[in-house]
Parts: sequence; C-alpha cells; structure tokens
Amino acid sequence: MIKTDILIIGAGPTGLFTVFEAGLLKLKCHLIDALPQPGGQCSELYPKKPIYDIPGFPEILAGDLTSNLLEQGKQFQPGFTLGERAETIEKQDDGSFIVTTNKGTKHHAPIVAIAGGLGSFEPRKPKLENIEKYEDKGVNYFIKDPEIYRDKKVIIAGGGDSALDWSIFLADVASSVTLVHRRNEFRGALDSVEKVQELKLLNKINLITPAEVTALHGKEFIDGITVTKDGIDTVLDTDYFIPLFGLSPKLGPIGNWGLEIEKNAIKVNTLDYQTNIPGIFAIGDVNTYEGKLKLILCGFHEATLMCQSAYKILNPGKKFVLKYTTVSGINGFDGTRKEAPKAVVKAIG
Amino acid sequence: MIKTDILIIGAGPTGLFTVFEAGLLKLKCHLIDALPQPGGQCSELYPKKPIYDIPGFPEILAGDLTSNLLEQGKQFQPGFTLGERAETIEKQDDGSFIVTTNKGTKHHAPIVAIAGGLGSFEPRKPKLENIEKYEDKGVNYFIKDPEIYRDKKVIIAGGGDSALDWSIFLADVASSVTLVHRRNEFRGALDSVEKVQELKLLNKINLITPAEVTALHGKEFIDGITVTKDGIDTVLDTDYFIPLFGLSPKLGPIGNWGLEIEKNAIKVNTLDYQTNIPGIFAIGDVNTYEGKLKLILCGFHEATLMCQSAYKILNPGKKFVLKYTTVSGINGFDGTRKEAPKAVVKAIG
Ligand SMILES: Cc1cc2nc3c(=O)[nH]c(=O)nc-3n(C[C@H](O)[C@H](O)[C@H](O)COP(=O)(O)OP(=O)(O)OC[C@H]3O[C@@H](n4cnc5c(N)ncnc54)[C@H](O)[C@@H]3O)c2cc1C
Ligand SMILES: Cc1cc2nc3c(=O)[nH]c(=O)nc-3n(C[C@H](O)[C@H](O)[C@H](O)COP(=O)(O)OP(=O)(O)OC[C@H]3O[C@@H](n4cnc5c(N)ncnc54)[C@H](O)[C@@H]3O)c2cc1C
Repeated sequence: MIKTDILIIGAGPTGLFTVFEAGLLKLKCHLIDALPQPGGQCSELYPKKPIYDIPGFPEILAGDLTSNLLEQGKQFQPGFTLGERAETIEKQDDGSFIVTTNKGTKHHAPIVAIAGGLGSFEPRKPKLENIEKYEDKGVNYFIKDPEIYRDKKVIIAGGGDSALDWSIFLADVASSVTLVHRRNEFRGALDSVEKVQELKLLNKINLITPAEVTALHGKEFIDGITVTKDGIDTVLDTDYFIPLFGLSPKLGPIGNWGLEIEKNAIKVNTLDYQTNIPGIFAIGDVNTYEGKLKLILCGFHEATLMCQSAYKILNPGKKFVLKYTTVSGINGFDGTRKEAPKAVVKAIG
Repeated sequence: MIKTDILIIGAGPTGLFTVFEAGLLKLKCHLIDALPQPGGQCSELYPKKPIYDIPGFPEILAGDLTSNLLEQGKQFQPGFTLGERAETIEKQDDGSFIVTTNKGTKHHAPIVAIAGGLGSFEPRKPKLENIEKYEDKGVNYFIKDPEIYRDKKVIIAGGGDSALDWSIFLADVASSVTLVHRRNEFRGALDSVEKVQELKLLNKINLITPAEVTALHGKEFIDGITVTKDGIDTVLDTDYFIPLFGLSPKLGPIGNWGLEIEKNAIKVNTLDYQTNIPGIFAIGDVNTYEGKLKLILCGFHEATLMCQSAYKILNPGKKFVLKYTTVSGINGFDGTRKEAPKAVVKAIG
C-alpha cells in the first residue's frame, strides 16, 4: 500500500505543479498516470511544439515545460505510479481514500486531487484478431522502457510522430526495426521524416509502405506478424509488435466514482475546486465551473488554491500564514534548501 | 485623450500579463502606473531576488520575470502612462470610463482593469521644511530618466539598495555624487555595498555618514542643502537632491471610486473578477474574495478570465471559441506572427 498526503491522479502540468505547491505546505504527493511518462497532453501530444501563453515564457516547448515542472517539484520527492490507470476509489471509515489501479496497485491518502485532464490516455488499438491475448506479451502500445527492445526484432506500425520518433530511437537499440504504414506519406516533424529517410537508406530501418499488419502469430508470446502489401501477404518474424496509432483520452472509470459530471468534466466550486465528495478535489482540464477555461495557467492557480484547502483539512485549527517563496526560501523534503541571497548590513569606511 | 479597449491601472505582473491575454482576443491595452517603470512590486521592491513559485520556473529573478512579461506582450503594442497616479474615474453616458491622473492625463476606455496591487507606490518623504516647494524642481523621489543628471551635482540620501544602486549608476553620469546616510551601516546586496566602497576610495562617490540632510536651499529651484554631521551643519551646493527612503504602496484615490472595499482590497466575484461597478474589474493583489491568495500566479489566472469577460462585453452576441496558442499561433498588432512549425506530410522513398 502506497501512503501519501495528497494522491494526485494525472501527472500532467496541473498534477506536477500540485507537487510543488503541496510541498511548500509540507504535504507529500504521489501521482498515478496511465501514461508511462509524466507531462499529460504536453508530453504525449505535442512535446516539441511551442506554447505561447504560459505567463513569463514568450515561448516554451511543451516538453520543456514538463521538464521544468518536474525540476521545480523535485525537492519535494513525489512518488509515481506510471503506466497504470486509477480504477476504483473506496472511502474509509476515517474519511481517507484507497485508490486502486487497473494493475492492482493500492494507494492510501486522506486527500485525492483528480488532475486527470481530458481523461486517461488510452491507445487506439488496431482491429486485429486476438490482439488482447498478446498485450504485454510482445504487443505494446506504449514504450515504457526502451531497453527491453535491446537486440530484439521490433515491428512498429503507424505514420505519425510517435511511429517516426520511436523507429529512429530504436534503430540504435533493437537488432532490427521495421516500420509499417498504410500510406507512403508520413505526417510529422520535418526533421523526423528526413531522419527516417536517411536511416532507411542506411538499411537501419526497414520500411514497408503502403502496407498493413493483418494478423498476429505466436503461441503465448508473439513471434510473427502478417503484413499485407499490394494484396500479397508476407509473414515476418518478430519479438515485438508496437502499434502507435495515437492515444485518445477517456474520462473512464473516474466517471463512476459518484462525482457530479457535466460535459465529461467534474463539477467543482471555485473556492477550492473541491468536488461534491469532501476530500476529493478536481483541478485542471478535468474540472468544470462557470467560465472555466481549459488552459494550463488556470490549472496552476486551481492547484494552488486546492493545496491551501487540503492543508486546512489536514491541519484543522492550525493558523495558516501565506509565505512568499522569495522571503522564506524553500526547504526540500530531501534536505536541500533554496533561498534568496540575504542583504548585508555593512559599514562603508 | 488616450483611447484604448482595456485601461489597466497598475503595470505590475498582473497588469503586464493582461496585455498578452487581451491581445490574444484582439483587444488593445494601455497601462497607467505611478512608478516610472513597469513591474510593480517585482521591479520596485525585489528585482534582484529569485522567486521560486512561478509555475515552470524553478527559479527566476523578479526583474527577469518583468522583462519576460514585457517581451511576451510586446507584439500587442501596449501604451504606457508612467510616473502618474490614476486619480479620478468618471462614467460616461455610454457606459465607458474616463480616468484622469494626478498630472491631468486623460484616458478613455470601455473597460477598466484595476491591477493596482497593494496600491500606487508613493515615496516616503523626509520631513524637511518646504520640500514640497522643490518637488520636480531639483527634488526627485524617483529616478525616471538618469540622463537629466548628466554633468550635474547630485546628492542622494538613504541607506538601502536604491540609494546604493543609483549612487553607483550616477557616479558615471553626474559631475559629482554625494551619498548621505544617517548610519555608517548600509543595508543591501553585498555586491552593491562593495561597489560603493570601491567608488568611495576612487573619490567617485562622496560619502557622508552618519549624517542627515536638515535643510534645503534655493530660490525657485534647489541650489543647496544643509548636512548635519556630529552636530555640525555644512551647506553643500547641488543641482539635485534625491531622497531614496523607500516607497510604500497606498490604495489611495481608488478607495474613493465607489468600489466595495474590504481590508484595503477591492471585492470581486470569482466568475470574472468584476467589481460591484459593471465594466470595472480588479485583478491581482488588489482584489479580494473568499480564499484569495496574494500570489503572482493567481493574478495571471484572474487576468485571463477577466479578459474573456471583457471580450464578451465588447462583442455582445459574438460566439467565442477558445483557441490554443500552440495550434493557432499569435498575430501581433505590429504585423508579426508567431506559430509552431507545421507537421509535414511527406512520402519516404
Ligand atoms: C495540441 C494541443 C495544443 C495545446 N496548446 C495549449 C496552449 O497553447 N496553451 C494552453 O494553456 N493549453 C494548451 N493545450 C491544452 C493543455 O495541454 C491542457 O490544458 C493541459 O495539458 C491540461 O493539463 P492537466 O494536467 O489538467 O491535464 P492533462 O495534461 O490532460 O494530463 C492529465 C493526465 O491524467 C492522466 N489520467 C487521467 N485519468 C486517469 C486515470 N483514471 N488514471 C491514471 N491517469 C489518468 C492522463 O493519462 C494524463 O496524463 C493544448 C492541448 C493540445 C492537445
Ligand atoms: C519582498 C517580496 C517578495 C515576494 N515574493 C513573492 C513570491 O515569492 N511569489 C509570489 O507569487 N509573490 C511574491 N510577492 C508578491 C508579489 O510581488 C505580488 O503578488 C505581485 O507583485 C502582485 O502583482 P500585481 O500586478 O497584482 O500588483 P503590484 O506588483 O503591486 O503592482 C501594482 C502596480 O499598480 C500601481 N498602482 C496602484 N494604484 C495605482 C494608481 N492609482 N495609479 C497608478 N498606478 C497605481 C503601483 O504603483 C504598482 O506598480 C512578493 C512580494 C514582496 C514585496
């Protein structure tokens, strides 16, 4: 059982900034995300694109924003359960909650902050007979740890940035990389398209287009696939098949937690972004209230107010005084301290 | 008469970010600030200190945050009335407002956003007979344009960062710089204290401590001051006397505009941060509502929601669709365009 002060569901920008604001109040956070990496939409959908409306950044790549937020919260040592979807919640007699993931990992916390964005990112699966049977047995929809592909035969399907970028990355790791796409044309960053072109000419990526994967083979684990090109079927040996057809967010199980839902979002008040269930908050894209804007900067404000309220729930009666980080500095849970250089008082002789 | 869409009172971080959010909605802004430079508390009180809780910046100097915000809004060409205090507001028959400053400058706008922080920064004046008579006639409490001191004799009084830093700066500009402080000890950044020490030894700053300025002389313009040290009075010739004893914010005239005030702050709703007078909003440190936190990141959110509401007031009936800057890019009022590099669709042969 993982225990923490604030259990955050969703490691997008809102969830990540919550770690920092909670840390200032000496509260510990643990994050669950269905994706194998933190960053939410920013890291999954547009890591290499610039955002122009993060206050103070005339321009920042979504991926860099994610790294900065991770860096900003690091000293508060958040825990992560990645690649798992929060599935059920049970209220305990003492008012605390136990949240269990689709893989059975249990988390226990007095406060739950749902920062689930548009929902947990679920892969679009190709319609192939028996594909479920091979899931996690050679068929992966995400790449969690590229090292597992070292010196293995890998077949990737897809025509967008993920398919291009992982083919490039794995070309140096796997023993062979085959990229199958149903069109000749790929859609992605110019850099990536050109790099795949180059690796193809060097025989480091085996490109099969226009073609489709039409069957999977193997006893327990996958050991081959059928590729159909120009009406002709070919069976290729492989250790892994990675269809990268994009992810789409689904509110999913959270929709059945007894929370008031409106237009696929969780209704909250604008005082502290608490839901109809005391102790459960909803912040960022996942919530809704009159005038709600699904913007990153709004999630930051919501997370900050929410942490104040969590603090009050966890420290009843304790008087809270807002401290400026500039004035008080920051004490990390890891023993680090950040503070502004102090003014000196000194005679000039 | 200066005309604009949104008249912003206060050019602190909240006011500056409003320019950007308004610009995204094609609304033009003009800012009034009592200070000679934008940035509010950040530039006046702690420009060289790090802030740790701006989302996405593990650390940023308050002065750099100000520059970044100016840069972020630049393409929307905000106007500025600096060094003037907004004094009166008159509602026009058509619902628009005319705001006049203490120097008589008039501004006309359908929407007023008060981003006045803790109030307009007013200098702490030394208690010297007749000092008002010499104001702007040799006595200055702010340094607006350092060039007016070129080859002039300047006497500065004070013992903090402003007194130290301006003495250093003007040592290269003025024909002579005298720094008077009532103690031997100065309080400021180590760098600045050491630099003044060095300039003193080079005879580039004339230091008189512990001493006080006790009288001002001159017919219409100032031409000299009396310094009292160890009970002995000395008269020094000078062209300028600049007492830098700090600035303190005062809600001031805005308190008499008919707005609901609570604990020196303006009451607003949390839907769009509008005040009890339709068309007048209050955002950032200057407002109050249940759970209000006087933090920079909260001002950013408030400014953003406020601009949406201003847009609806100015474009009645027009349907508004939120656009992501990443997806839509930014069209500056100066003809510039920023946009994310587009994905290419390209065959790999
Ligand atoms: C192409 C594009 C461009 C954009 N441009 C901008 C822009 O310019 N400016 C701007 O402000 N915003 C922009 N946005 C929107 C911005 O990305 C979102 O507002 C932001 O990501 C919301 O952050 P969040 O943390 O609330 O949610 P998300 O980023 O959506 O993260 C939520 C996370 O929660 C996880 N999750 C949800 N449910 C569960 C569950 N049950 N179990 C486990 N994990 C779960 C999801 O997997 C996801 O990782 C853009 C979005 C897109 C797609
Ligand atoms: C030492 C210190 C450290 C801080 N550290 C942090 C921190 O770590 N994190 C954080 O989030 N916040 C911090 N703050 C608070 C932060 O600076 C404020 O929240 C922020 O500046 C508020 O921005 P604002 O734009 O609302 O108002 P302000 O920055 O106060 O700007 C308001 C401006 O309005 C002008 N004005 C007001 N009335 C009038 C008028 N009638 N006419 C003309 N001009 C007028 C004023 O002159 C001023 O320039 C700190 C503050 C201080 C003093």
